[in-house]
Parts: sequence; C-alpha cells; structure tokens
Amino acid sequence: MAFVKLKPGALLSPVPPVLVTCAGENIRPNGLAVGWAGTVNTIPPMCSVSIRPGRYSHDIIRDSGEFVINLCGKDMMQALDYCGVRSGRDEDKLKKCGLTCVEAEGMQYAPAVAESPLYLACKVESMTPLGSHDLFIGRVVSMGVREDLWDESGRIALDRADLLAYSHGTYYELGKALGFFGFSVARKDVYQKRMKELRGTNRK
Amino acid sequence: MAFVKLKPGALLSPVPPVLVTCAGENIRPNGLAVGWAGTVNTIPPMCSVSIRPGRYSHDIIRDSGEFVINLCGKDMMQALDYCGVRSGRDEDKLKKCGLTCVEAEGMQYAPAVAESPLYLACKVESMTPLGSHDLFIGRVVSMGVREDLWDESGRIALDRADLLAYSHGTYYELGKALGFFGFSVARKDVYQKRMKELRGTNRK
Repeated sequence: MAFVKLKPGALLSPVPPVLVTCAGENIRPNGLAVGWAGTVNTIPPMCSVSIRPGRYSHDIIRDSGEFVINLCGKDMMQALDYCGVRSGRDEDKLKKCGLTCVEAEGMQYAPAVAESPLYLACKVESMTPLGSHDLFIGRVVSMGVREDLWDESGRIALDRADLLAYSHGTYYELGKALGFFGFSVARKDVYQKRMKELRGTNRK
Repeated sequence: MAFVKLKPGALLSPVPPVLVTCAGENIRPNGLAVGWAGTVNTIPPMCSVSIRPGRYSHDIIRDSGEFVINLCGKDMMQALDYCGVRSGRDEDKLKKCGLTCVEAEGMQYAPAVAESPLYLACKVESMTPLGSHDLFIGRVVSMGVREDLWDESGRIALDRADLLAYSHGTYYELGKALGFFGFSVARKDVYQKRMKELRGTNRK
C-alpha cells in the first residue's frame, strides 16, 4: 500500500487526554485539558505536558513549579472537554464542572481531582519554548490511585478506570484488551494464562 | 473518593504504542517499539520519543538525526510487540516481522513502514538525557497516510485505522467514539450533527 503525502501535522495518535491541575499563592486551583502529554522517563518517572504560553494555566505552572496530571475516565469527559475550551481567567472551571479538589502529596499548591482514577503530581524540572507551545518536563513526586481501583493484591486496576483516549479531535473509550507487553515471545503456557486474565478484564 | 498513595511511577495512560524506524549510512533499517512518545508542539509540528541509551536504535537516531514514527493498527500488534522485546543488534526485526520499508519523504536514511496507517517523519532537534531514557525531540518534516485511509474529501480517516492504545502493560483497541473536541459547549444543532457523524464511524 502506498502513502498519500500530506502537509506535516501533529497527528501522533491516540494520545492521553488529561486534566492538568495547578494553583498558586493566592491563585485558586484551575484545570486545563491537555492532549500534548507524554511519559518521557522511567527512572526517575517523568512526564511532559505542552501548553501554549497564552493559556491561563501556563504562568501558574511556570511560577509555582508544579502541576498534577489527572487521568480521565469516561465520566469526566464533559468536564475535561469544558476545561479545554474555556479559560480559568473567566471562571472557576473546576467548580463549574463539579470536580472536587483534594490534596496531592508533595505539592504545595496544585491539587488533584478526586474524580480522577489516578493522579501524577509533578515538580517542574524544565520549561522549553518550542514554538506554539512550551514543553514542561515534570518529575513525578507522588502518585495516587482512586481507592476503588486499588486491588489489595497490590495491583492498580486501571482496566476498570474506563480511561479515555483522544485521536484526531475525537474522544474514544478504550476497547478490548488485545495483548500484553511481550506476548509475541511468551512461552505458550504463560501466553495462555495471561491472555485468559486479560480477556477477563474485558467487560463488553 | 480518596486516593491510595503509591510510589511514583510512569503511569500516564493510555499512551500511543508506535513503531519508530531508523537507519544510517551502511546501517540497515531497524524498528523499535516506543510507548514513551508524545506530541510536544503544534506549530511547527513536533513529537518526542524517549529511548534508553542502551537500545540499538538510540545511537542510530542520534547519529543520523532522523526517525520515523509509524502509528500502529491492530494488525501490526504482533510485529510491534516483537520489536519491543528483541534487539536489532541480533536480527533484522523488520524483515522477520514481514514489514515493508518504503521511502519517507524528507528522510535521508530512515524508512517508513508500508503497513502503518500513518507515518510522521522527524528530524532530531535535540536529545536530552533524563535518567533511564534520553528524550529526542523531532520536528515533523513530512507525513504520509496510507492511501486507503485518505478520503477524497480531504479527510484523514484515522477512525478506520484500528489504532492501538497502550495502558499499564496492555495493548487495547480503541473502542467507541464518544465525543468531539468542544462538544461540551457546542450549539445543539452542531452537537447533534457531529455526534451522528461520529456514531457512524463506530463499527461495532
């Protein structure tokens, strides 16, 4: 199959649509929808978020040196979208959307959102202007999983979080679990055991 | 709902599981599975990929200054996983997986993979060591969409690409389209029209 050559664009896909929260000294908590987010390092854990300099949250994050990435499940889609198109300059978006701010361990100002399945609290390591966006790299200093998604066996049950994915302007639900990392070279008995477990997580 | 506090980890989710291809002067094309990828800028379009310094592709990308991000559909899952657990030092993984290298516009060495729904050909702008991984930022200099996904009306039909998502060690298919960017503030007639179109893209 051949390719049709197109004007270059930012079409990496799917990306994680996340709610980034921040606050400051005498600045109320705000939430911003971010699609340009990624994991950039494993040890120590680091994530990046890219934010336009004109966005209200940009200077709050730069000045406070903190942000929290809140993963988003299906039931947060309306709030997430709203926080992507409206500005914290004009209103208290988190309140408007009925989201609940709670303390995120290790953060001086930035809250987590209680409705999120999992939060990653980050301290800003660097900010790099790239053009339309500034790239913030954050070191994950604490992480919290919503208690209904914490399995006592020590497993984070993200498969029950109904996480959203974002692709080319559209929000999607995650569909069926299809395989596990390393399945292509797994021993047959391991493969069968793991795939049975994975299929058990498919609720539809 | 309260949070259970856990040791910080790299749990941003879902992330795009992509096949990154590279090559060099007298170095055959190689493919590497990358989960730590993200969009970092819109204008000009830029993406990041984080790669461990010990990986075979790392030095090829650093020295050639090029890489291609190939998005992955369901039918590439086996190949993608294999390219994540085996090394190009030991074998020609792309050949072994039956993937076809084709020219990616603007690249001197790095190919695209013909089976991919869409490729983003990148020139390295910077490489930043972060710890376990080095962060490569690439400017997207060309983009190609597989011709069966190019709609003559000028739409990239990524919804027909059966893209994979990756979350916490598991490959997922994208499920139902649930909403479009801005839906939460759309006028009622616009909302209804767009949602009808979106539902039409849900094949299951």
